Amino acid sequence: MAETSAEEKAERRIVVAVDEGEESTYALTWCLTNLISSNFKDTLFLVYARCAPTVYTGLDGTGYMFSSDIVATMERYANEVAESVMEKAQKICRDLAGDIRVDTRVEGGDARDVICQMVERLNADILVMGSHGYGLIKRAFLGSVSNHCAQNVKCPVLIVKKPKSPAS
Amino acid sequence: MAETSAEEKAERRIVVAVDEGEESTYALTWCLTNLISSNFKDTLFLVYARCAPTVYTGLDGTGYMFSSDIVATMERYANEVAESVMEKAQKICRDLAGDIRVDTRVEGGDARDVICQMVERLNADILVMGSHGYGLIKRAFLGSVSNHCAQNVKCPVLIVKKPKSPAS
Repeated sequence: MAETSAEEKAERRIVVAVDEGEESTYALTWCLTNLISSNFKDTLFLVYARCAPTVYTGLDGTGYMFSSDIVATMERYANEVAESVMEKAQKICRDLAGDIRVDTRVEGGDARDVICQMVERLNADILVMGSHGYGLIKRAFLGSVSNHCAQNVKCPVLIVKKPKSPAS
Repeated sequence: MAETSAEEKAERRIVVAVDEGEESTYALTWCLTNLISSNFKDTLFLVYARCAPTVYTGLDGTGYMFSSDIVATMERYANEVAESVMEKAQKICRDLAGDIRVDTRVEGGDARDVICQMVERLNADILVMGSHGYGLIKRAFLGSVSNHCAQNVKCPVLIVKKPKSPAS
């Protein structure tokens, strides 16, 4: 193998899981401030798991069926949310690390599966995520997304918690 | 509060949990290569949890009692292991980031408690650790140390897994 010169920077593929929550915004900000470095050629992949429309895909046909109007509205809403999350995340990247290469991936499905699969597919060097990523109720049933990902992906995982505001 | 000048670097207190395992060595190496940055004034705290001599501290007095000779031998052995782990870790720090400030902390007790308490006491900005940290059997009973810490400390947690060697 050819030896890399000192000038040649090592590439890193950093996956950041983003969602609607403040914690994910904080995790992205922390990553841009603390991990992104001019010593590397970093590419940031913003990954967003869009809610899969599970309600009308019951295998045995017993699931609730919505009219196509409602389905279309739900889909449109999910797309709008995804777009708004991605726009916000990209703006943070531009503001904090203007020259970094940023790529986005939106995929439907359970956040845990989407994130783990994406990390593998993108051959990521590190996964960055907030410690939550589900609402309180859903988390109680499904367990924490970050726990699941930390156990299942092969690369290093950085779990960033948003500190509680000191006076509240 | 006085405003910091652009020249003044932000300080970070980075706790790295070290133990006898290869995974912890890999986590430390990854941290030194990927996280430590000349943009910050970093201090690395190497934290090692020494096995607590639980066998002879049963509260109800029913625990196995060892002769003082055996206890002394065990203590000496535990100290030697701690010293050797710390020496190895400090050498890695010198080799990979010669000018970084490194401090060490050895404390007796369960790794999960020692690490979480130390992160709080040192007011750490980030905790770095391997994904294991216990032997296979102990892990099955107690759960993963990294899971526990990720859930309980307040700062960001970086969990670094040692990749399996490609040809084995």
